This record gives sequence, C-alpha cells and structure tokens, in this order.
Amino acid sequence: MNNNYQNLVRWLEEISRLNGVMSTIAWDQEVMMPAGAADARAKQIAALAGVIHERMTNPALGECLDELHNHLGDFDAIALCNIQEARRDFDLMTRIPNQLVQALAELGSRGHTVWVRARRENKFSDFAPVLDEFLKLKKEWAACAFPDLTTYDANIDQFERGTTAAEIAVIFEQLKDTLIPLIHEIKEQSYQPDTTFLHGHFPVEKQAALARKISENIGFQYDKGRMDVSVHPFCGGSHPTDVRITTRYNESDFVESLYAVIHETGHALYEQGRMLEFGDLPVSESLTMGIHESQSLFWERMIGQSREFCTHYFATICEAFPGNLKRATVDSFYQAINACAPGFIRVEADELTYPLHVILRFEIEKGLFDGSVAVADLPEVWNEKMDTYLGIKPPTDTLGVLQDSHWSSGAFGYFPSYTLGAIYACQFYKAMQKELPDTDKAIESGNFKPIKDWLNENIHSQGRRNSPQELVLRIAGEPLNPQHLIDYLKTKYRALYRLA
Amino acid sequence: MNNNYQNLVRWLEEISRLNGVMSTIAWDQEVMMPAGAADARAKQIAALAGVIHERMTNPALGECLDELHNHLGDFDAIALCNIQEARRDFDLMTRIPNQLVQALAELGSRGHTVWVRARRENKFSDFAPVLDEFLKLKKEWAACAFPDLTTYDANIDQFERGTTAAEIAVIFEQLKDTLIPLIHEIKEQSYQPDTTFLHGHFPVEKQAALARKISENIGFQYDKGRMDVSVHPFCGGSHPTDVRITTRYNESDFVESLYAVIHETGHALYEQGRMLEFGDLPVSESLTMGIHESQSLFWERMIGQSREFCTHYFATICEAFPGNLKRATVDSFYQAINACAPGFIRVEADELTYPLHVILRFEIEKGLFDGSVAVADLPEVWNEKMDTYLGIKPPTDTLGVLQDSHWSSGAFGYFPSYTLGAIYACQFYKAMQKELPDTDKAIESGNFKPIKDWLNENIHSQGRRNSPQELVLRIAGEPLNPQHLIDYLKTKYRALYRLA
Repeated sequence: MNNNYQNLVRWLEEISRLNGVMSTIAWDQEVMMPAGAADARAKQIAALAGVIHERMTNPALGECLDELHNHLGDFDAIALCNIQEARRDFDLMTRIPNQLVQALAELGSRGHTVWVRARRENKFSDFAPVLDEFLKLKKEWAACAFPDLTTYDANIDQFERGTTAAEIAVIFEQLKDTLIPLIHEIKEQSYQPDTTFLHGHFPVEKQAALARKISENIGFQYDKGRMDVSVHPFCGGSHPTDVRITTRYNESDFVESLYAVIHETGHALYEQGRMLEFGDLPVSESLTMGIHESQSLFWERMIGQSREFCTHYFATICEAFPGNLKRATVDSFYQAINACAPGFIRVEADELTYPLHVILRFEIEKGLFDGSVAVADLPEVWNEKMDTYLGIKPPTDTLGVLQDSHWSSGAFGYFPSYTLGAIYACQFYKAMQKELPDTDKAIESGNFKPIKDWLNENIHSQGRRNSPQELVLRIAGEPLNPQHLIDYLKTKYRALYRLA
Repeated sequence: MNNNYQNLVRWLEEISRLNGVMSTIAWDQEVMMPAGAADARAKQIAALAGVIHERMTNPALGECLDELHNHLGDFDAIALCNIQEARRDFDLMTRIPNQLVQALAELGSRGHTVWVRARRENKFSDFAPVLDEFLKLKKEWAACAFPDLTTYDANIDQFERGTTAAEIAVIFEQLKDTLIPLIHEIKEQSYQPDTTFLHGHFPVEKQAALARKISENIGFQYDKGRMDVSVHPFCGGSHPTDVRITTRYNESDFVESLYAVIHETGHALYEQGRMLEFGDLPVSESLTMGIHESQSLFWERMIGQSREFCTHYFATICEAFPGNLKRATVDSFYQAINACAPGFIRVEADELTYPLHVILRFEIEKGLFDGSVAVADLPEVWNEKMDTYLGIKPPTDTLGVLQDSHWSSGAFGYFPSYTLGAIYACQFYKAMQKELPDTDKAIESGNFKPIKDWLNENIHSQGRRNSPQELVLRIAGEPLNPQHLIDYLKTKYRALYRLA
C-alpha cells in the first residue's frame, strides 16, 4: 500500500518532468525557434504530447489509484492531495474517448490558422464554422468529462475549478451596476489627465534595463529564471527553479512593456514561490487561472499602479527617459498611467474598463452554450454589448469578435478568470494590509520583501493544499466578494477624475 | 509487410522527434537555462531519456524488424537504409543489459563532477578511480555491443563506424613521420610571423556582427537556425530546419571566436543540407563524427585559413577593427592566423600541431584497452609523449592529462575522429577542386555558393545511403588517404615559414 503511493509518486514525477520538457519546448517555440522550424516543431510537440497522454492514461496508474482509494486514512494531507489530484486528472483524461481527443487536437491546430486569416481579412464568416464545430466538440467533451455539470460549467471548471456560470453571473451583474455608470461619468467629465508625456521615443535598451531592475526589486530571482522578448508577453518555464517571463518593446510606449513585465513577474513569483520539496508533484502546483491572475494583477495594478509605487520609481523612470518626462510630476505620472479610456481591444484595456470586456465575453459564451446566442449572430451581439457597456461600436470584426485567440483553440470558460483574478487580488491586498499596516510606506520606500514574503507564505507555498474557495476564505475571512474591487475602483477613479 | 514498413517509419519518426526535443533541451541547458535549474533539468532529461530508451528497445519494434528481414528484396535503397539502421540501433540497444546502461549513466554523471574538481585542483589521483571504473564498464559494454570486435574497436565504432584501431594506427604513423620533424624545423626557424596585431581590444558587438556576416555569406540559413553564446562552441539543434551554432567571445582575441563560428557553420551546413523529405528518418542523418568534422574543418581550415579567404575578408575585418589592424596586410594577416606554436591545450592547437594532440590520446586509449598502459601511469605517459611529439612538457596535469572532458563521460574512441575529419576534409577539397577548378577565384571573390552546393549535393544530402568508406571512395576515387593532408600541410607550412 505504501508501495502503491511510492509508485504513484514516481508516475506523477515522471509526468511532471515530461510536462516540464514540454514547457521549455513551448517557450522555445515562442522565444527562440527560427521561423523555418515550425513544421518540424509541431511534429516534435505532437510526439511528446502523445507520450504524456499515454503516461497519464496508463491503466496501471488507474489500478494503483484504485488500491490507494481503500487506504486514504493512512496518508497525511500532502499525500492525500497528490492522490486526489492524480485521481481527478486520470478520470478526466480517461473519460474522453480517443477519437474526441484527436478531433479536438486537430481542430485546435486548424482553428488557429483559420482564425489568424479571418482576423487579418476581417471575415467572421470564415471563422464561424470553426466556432460551431468547437462548440459541438466542447459540449461532447463536457458531457464526458463532467456529466453532472452543465456543459458551460464543465468548461469553466477547467480554468476555475468549483465555480459555476450562475455564481459568476451574479458577481458580474454587481460589477456592471457600478462600472457602466462610472465609466460613463468619466467619459463625460471635463477634467481628463494629461498623458502626452507618455508618448515619445523610449530606446529598447533603456526599457529593458528598467524592467529588469524593477522585476528584480519586486523579487524575481534571475538565477531561477529569465526575461526575454516574444510577440505576446507570457510567463512560462519548466519548474519553480526555471521560470521564464517575456515582454515586447514598443519604442514609442514604455508603459505597456513595463507593466507587462510587472504583470508577468507577478505570475513568476507564484511559480518561483512554490514548495520546492514537492516541486514535481501536484500538491505544489498553482491553483486556478483566477488565482494565478490574482498574483499578476496584485503586482501590476494593486501595487504597480499605486501612487506609492509611482512615488518610489518616478526618479528612476525620469533618469531612464530624461527628455520625455521633463514635464511630468509624480502626481501627473500617476494620473497618466491610470487614465481610463474605453477601447475596442481587451488586452489594451485599463483597469476600469477591463472587466466589461470580460463580462461581454462571458455573457456571449453562456449564450452559446445554453443556445440563446447563435454563432452567426456573434458580430451583432458583440457590437451591441460594446455599445451598451462602453459606449463604443467596433468598426470591424477584427477590432471586435475576432480579436482574441481563445475561441480559436476551443478555450471557452477562460475569460471569467481574468476578472475573478482582479477580485481575488483586491481581497488579498486588503487582507495583507490588515496584517502589514505599513504596506503603503513599504511600497513608497521600495521595500517589497514583506509583501513578497506574505504572498509566498499565504498563497504560493500553499500549492493545492486548499481549494481556491478555501484559500480566499482563510486569507480574507469571507468568500469571493466583488464589493472590495467595486469599492476600490470607485474610490480610486472618482478621486482620479475629480468626480464629486 | 508494407504495413510493417509503415509501422517502422512511424516508430522511427517518433524516436527521431523525441530525440529532437532532447536536442533542444540540451541546447537550452548550455545556452539559456538559469543556473538554479540544473537539478530539475537533470531529472527532466532523465525522464525523457527513459522514454526514448523504452521506445528504442520496444520488443514490438524488434518483431517488426524481424518480419521485414524476410522481405528486404521488396524495398528501395532509401527504405533498405532505414531498415538496416533501425536494426543496428535496436540490436545495439537491446544487447546491453539494463544494469550496465544504468551503471554507465550513473558514472557518466558522477564522473563529470569528479573530473571538473580534479582538473580544477590539479589532482589526477582523484580522477583515476573514475577512469578505471569507466574502462571496466566500457569493456563490458563492448563485449555486449560488438562481441566480434576488440573492445577498443567497439568503442571507436560508436563514432567512426567501420574503422579499426589498427587502420588508424597506420595512418597516424604516417602523420607522425612528417609532422614531428616539420614542427621541430618550424620551431628552430629564425623567421616567425608577426602576430602582435591580433592582440588588442575587439568589442563583442563587432565580433558578433562579423561572425554573423561571414556565416551568412558561407551559407548558414538564419531562418532555419540561430547563433548564440555558450561556454564551449558547439553545433546543436533538433532538425535540418532548426540548426543552432554557438560561440564565445573573448574581447582580446577575435580570431578564436571567428574561426569557431566558421567551424560550427561547417557542421551546421551539413545539418541544414540533409534531405528534408526524410528529415525524421535515419537515411537522412549525418554519417560518422569524422565525416561531420570533415565539414567543419573544410570551412575552418581548407577555406577559412586560405590566402584567398583572407584576401576577400581582409578589408571587412579591418573595417570592424580599424585601430588594431592598421599595421597588418593581407599577407601578414594570412601568416598570423596560420602561425604554428606547440601548446599544451588541444582545443587551442593550430592546424599543424593538432593531429599530434589527437595521436597522443589515441595511443593512450589503445594502451588502456589492450592493457599496455595503466591508468596510474597516465600523467607520466602523457607528458613524455608531449615532449617527444611537440617538444614541451605540461607543468601540471590540468594542462595535461586532465584537460579534456571526453573520458569523464566514458567517450573513448572519439578523439581519432578529429584527425580523420582533417584527412577527409583535405581529400574532399581536392576532389572538389577537380570538379570546380575556379574554387580559388570563387573564394577570393566571396562566392561560396558553388562550394556549398557541391557539399550539399555530394555529402550533406547523401545522408546514410553510403557508408563513410563508400562515400570517400565515390568522391575522391580512393579510400581514406592521409597523404593529401600531409602534402597540403608540408607545402603550406614550408612556404609560410620560408623553409627551403
């Protein structure tokens, strides 16, 4: 029986290490691979994915888990977590027929290509059949994977385990009630912050040195990670000792790149902060997408966009770009980087309008799964919601329904995590402030260590020992509650925009 | 039966793709990996190596090969080559008991660590037990892998298939007969080329730009490859469309880095020039280590160190380093980069003394395997041979017997390939000159395309369709013959050193 657990650990460690290899290969593909290698790489990835799938669905692993099931009382919390996570993954994988796995993989690869072209050519009708096919397959998948859940809830569960569309809908209604009128008020307000000094020429080397310095100050360990350049910023890597963030540089906008680095550093600190002792076992792994996003938004928004952070780094930033920031002050800089302006593109959205981009997508996905929205009507539904929520209508589908890659790979249920992450981040920040009342002063003096230590202890090193629901309850003393984000945004942006 | 071949192809392609993944991971480890990730990476590599070993020794693959054996007449040359190569690899892998495989892997990992420390501390006695153990295991391995060969020939066969120590010994005696007296004459000669202008300060960016330009001129395709920095230059990558060379920069010596790039570009052209159609099958793979080295030395020495090459690039090099090369002329530059000076370290050796470093190692390995040399006596044997062949005695074992990493990972039989490569390179170059009589003019005008095309056609795209012995016979019209290298070195260096 003990033997069974030893075998399980060996299996899980092998799977985790092969997944680590896959992560490095995926990172290489985005950051290092020469363009001409794309075809060969796709085949290499498929071969490795096949091996990992074979390992994860090995019947002997199932038998081992069955044996362990009869002796759960013999294990400590760490071992129990590993057993339960392994059981969940094994069941999830083995419930899906091979044919469906292959159909999803094939469509994922083809769908992405179709989407890239459709977006480029602004032709939603080319992408619509892929969406229809994905919805069909993802409903089939949901019925196999989680027969007790609605098909959309099953899809959400992949990213935000234990959360349902019904729960999310209630939370998102609360957000809409406050954010839509607030954004409208801001738009109508005569006072608007000056952002002109954020435009100019910002040399890549200066941006890179600044990003490196700030990420290091925050706590990113470069002996256990790297920072490189890719088309879209991301956080990857193969192990807590090998965490890799990327950014991209735009020589006419340093804020975009800098805050992308702070965001990815937030993800990276989660990964570098995992329990090393069980580094190749599920118990050490991060929780949901929403909790991961809470860590990136914690640093990017709660800290990076705070007045205290601006106060601490203003001189450093002016030193990097002396010509451009001549006219700025700490206060005008703080106002400028927090400017609110409804736009078409989610990834460029500010803190205040971002949740509405997410809510729009969530409502559409919900409609697609419950049958109340048809794929053919998506552009119209999209544009009307944009008008209602943000007061703007995309002139093209490229700037509207075709902008995100998620649906082209079948990732339905992913979008809510972004805003759940923002809510978690706000709750965690508030809880931390209670325990560390000097947080503001610490940020202003550039002392991020107590903050990083608090996150390491309370979140990163906890791994999967608690569910996300348990985690937020333990830290915040209450369940997921959007009111904190609402209060924070209202207070911050009413002050910023001098609203009564 | 046809079905069997289709299955074989699928197996071989999977193995090749997993090996491609391994190559990228190995490259990453040398070039990109943060230092703190070493332990995790070692475990990831072990997991992937385990999968590849399992695939390569799958009994079903053996059965498939047995089936195919009865129908060899049905296949074309390409398929036959794939079947034969697969058979060879399968037999080689399955003949070695698992226990021995593990013992070799364990000693390889431990041996390297012991060697690094012994070399640093100049303490051969610490390394001697590892060498003893490796010799024992490698003899066992040889008896399993190639029971019909002597144990040293079996080890040579891994790198230089079909070549024996007896054949190599005859060739090396011929080299010694000419090179030892020639090097002695050069040492005694009053005229010595001026190399002082090769010392100075050469900024890394200038070196990198020059190396990039020259490697591209020669034919390295950067859309199917990369150039990066590592501790030791090497050529890696995962596929003909993803070939990665590295170099290292020393700001006080640009020749070292530049010629390392030319050398690695030679290896890279071989890989980029492989048959794409069968890119994941053995028939497309490179031949022996010696043939691979012939390609790097072809470009580094036969071309890169020629007067014509210096003539073409002298102005470009002066432009990159205008201060340093003020005093140089094409002729003095050509003489300086070909200066001959016996030294302790193989990897720093010039064209003329390099073979003697190799011969010394070959003779020692031969003695270790036939029992005529004892591990304990190695430092003494080494130093005496250095004195006899090059007229110098290493003051420490760090500069002597401990300098190379090869033995620390059990790579006996590898060293001869370096000099076999030099002999092949000379024979290939001579054969090419017959077909392309304007080669000298082409080099002088920087037109490397006909040369690269000739190599692509005659060597790179041939893959394993012929044995190395058949290849050299087909190209040069005779078997491996060291006389061409001997004549080339004698003519070149007698002229360079103004010897009668």
